[in-house]
Amino acid sequence: MERYDIAIIGSGPAGLASAINAKTRNKSVIVFGSSDLSKKLTLAPVINNYLGFYGIRGAELQEKFKEHIDNMGIQIENVKVNNIYAMGEYFSIMTSKDTYEASKVILAMGMEHTKPLKGEDKFLGRGVGYCATCDAPLYKGKIVTIVGYNKEAESEANYLAELASKVYYVPRYKDEYQLVSAVEIVKDVPVEIVGDKKVEKLKLKSRELETDGVFVLKDSAPPEQLVPGLYVEDGHIKVNRKMETNIDGCYAAGDCTGKPYQYMKAVGEGQVAALNAVEKLYTKA
Amino acid sequence: MERYDIAIIGSGPAGLASAINAKTRNKSVIVFGSSDLSKKLTLAPVINNYLGFYGIRGAELQEKFKEHIDNMGIQIENVKVNNIYAMGEYFSIMTSKDTYEASKVILAMGMEHTKPLKGEDKFLGRGVGYCATCDAPLYKGKIVTIVGYNKEAESEANYLAELASKVYYVPRYKDEYQLVSAVEIVKDVPVEIVGDKKVEKLKLKSRELETDGVFVLKDSAPPEQLVPGLYVEDGHIKVNRKMETNIDGCYAAGDCTGKPYQYMKAVGEGQVAALNAVEKLYTKA
Ligand SMILES: Cc1cc2nc3c(=O)[nH]c(=O)nc-3n(C[C@H](O)[C@H](O)[C@H](O)COP(=O)(O)OP(=O)(O)OC[C@H]3O[C@@H](n4cnc5c(N)ncnc54)[C@H](O)[C@@H]3O)c2cc1C
Ligand SMILES: Cc1cc2nc3c(=O)[nH]c(=O)nc-3n(C[C@H](O)[C@H](O)[C@H](O)COP(=O)(O)OP(=O)(O)OC[C@H]3O[C@@H](n4cnc5c(N)ncnc54)[C@H](O)[C@@H]3O)c2cc1C
Repeated sequence: MERYDIAIIGSGPAGLASAINAKTRNKSVIVFGSSDLSKKLTLAPVINNYLGFYGIRGAELQEKFKEHIDNMGIQIENVKVNNIYAMGEYFSIMTSKDTYEASKVILAMGMEHTKPLKGEDKFLGRGVGYCATCDAPLYKGKIVTIVGYNKEAESEANYLAELASKVYYVPRYKDEYQLVSAVEIVKDVPVEIVGDKKVEKLKLKSRELETDGVFVLKDSAPPEQLVPGLYVEDGHIKVNRKMETNIDGCYAAGDCTGKPYQYMKAVGEGQVAALNAVEKLYTKA
Repeated sequence: MERYDIAIIGSGPAGLASAINAKTRNKSVIVFGSSDLSKKLTLAPVINNYLGFYGIRGAELQEKFKEHIDNMGIQIENVKVNNIYAMGEYFSIMTSKDTYEASKVILAMGMEHTKPLKGEDKFLGRGVGYCATCDAPLYKGKIVTIVGYNKEAESEANYLAELASKVYYVPRYKDEYQLVSAVEIVKDVPVEIVGDKKVEKLKLKSRELETDGVFVLKDSAPPEQLVPGLYVEDGHIKVNRKMETNIDGCYAAGDCTGKPYQYMKAVGEGQVAALNAVEKLYTKA
């Protein structure tokens, strides 16, 4: 298996800044994320505080970023990373389809701002999960509910439907849902996950669903779920001035490391993370 | 006297990033520096790692930065800051002409890469200085030598010539020197500052100058000279993740806080410094 020098998780400003700097230093890079780069970028109506671009629309800045990486031959793997394991010498990076290896990892997943559901934290690991395809085997013949915040969640629901006895899909966005017929769409607002020792029900605004498991599928999972052993404080990945996390060889940059949530902070941190990671690649025996 | 919310020392990428963010938050800002922004920016032949501008020339990026601050009505005070004193509630900022006040200070002076002269550190405060106009009264009727790294040093030499018995000017750049006739230009390479208890001579490559004082005038003075009491480690201003220095209300950003010396790091830190300074302005009683 090819082992990349640096794997970057996230294709927002922080991840791209990491990528261009690692690439400039002639390192092999793989970037996981969205080929649209970052939803937050597309949504920004007008940006006045990215130095050099006064009054630019988010979608225009996204185009500038795209041009930049295209010019440098940087591609984005349009796939979600489910788990990252520190193996000592390298990291093992899992998507629902493949496994990748990299010597260093830069976490640039942004920040998920939607609040957890009532009961979500309480039942985490006891019926609540963030990666349906990872945990699917646990739900063979059982009832599962997916609360999906984006279109990608649909394929996880379809996959689960092959194993589970029943799959409910509670979409938190508007679209044409591409779901197999075995999946039941429930257009309602989730309120609370309830149970005794483990999940028993998902309460919605106007009904209740009996369920053995609830998957909450947002754009990004909590970082400590993504990287077991990662030190997180108040929801943010703890880093030092070199953007090193508590895990050797694992760096973080951008919104996921804390406030302020802003573009220039994100690109600056992405650059610092990449250049420090590159330096460590050189000094390794 | 008008008291600014935030004074920014330096007009490079870090200082400008601070300025646009403080201004966006509706704070009163004063930026000290060069109206050319940053010599380093002008010198850069081609820049590939400022996200959004692939392959841009330094001079072009400088233009983009200028447009940005012009659009926001941010002006640069084209003057060098000699000293900054923490007065408790506010900071007192001295140039050779005026004194200014600000509630918060952001240091964004960049990094001076030329090595100190042999003997420079040893005789600092005992004949060696970094601000001729500040220390001029000490040299009334004495012999003074100025090692000037830029054109601005010439006016300091002219000023000293009014008090000192003799002024030597050793230019470290090529230009038409605008010096009064009392100043003797010495085109030679300084090698070492020598003396017993205090400065006695400046050794040059091909001659020696007997002198009571030597002023070394570069683009930026060592930060601990500029701000008495500032904690500096290996030549870099020590900061935490909020870009706070050891002095309450004093922040730093860009090259002056350490490696990597790069644009995106500089703008990211400038932004973080400004937004934290703004937050402290709000929370102050
Ligand atoms: C409407 C709006 C307006 C804004 N306006 C401004 C502004 O004017 N100025 C300003 O400075 N900031 C603004 N911001 C904030 C700015 O968008 C963020 O600070 C910035 O996008 C953070 O960059 P990032 O790279 O850290 O994260 P993000 O931009 O959030 O990018 C993270 C990327 O990682 C991907 N990802 C997450 N998890 C995974 C995974 N497991 N596998 C693969 N990929 C993953 C995400 O899908 C996303 O593409 C605005 C934000 C919004 C929402
Ligand atoms: C030739 C060259 C090429 C480069 N190429 C790249 C590149 O491709 N990519 C990249 O990322 N980086 C590059 N860099 C590095 C980049 O220029 C610096 O990292 C960046 O300019 C640092 O920004 P700054 O705002 O911290 O400091 P600076 O840009 O150095 O600005 C500091 C400003 O403060 C002013 N100042 C200092 N002291 C005082 C005082 N006492 N009073 C008033 N004003 C003061 C200075 O005159 C200056 O204008 C290059 C540098 C050089 C020299």
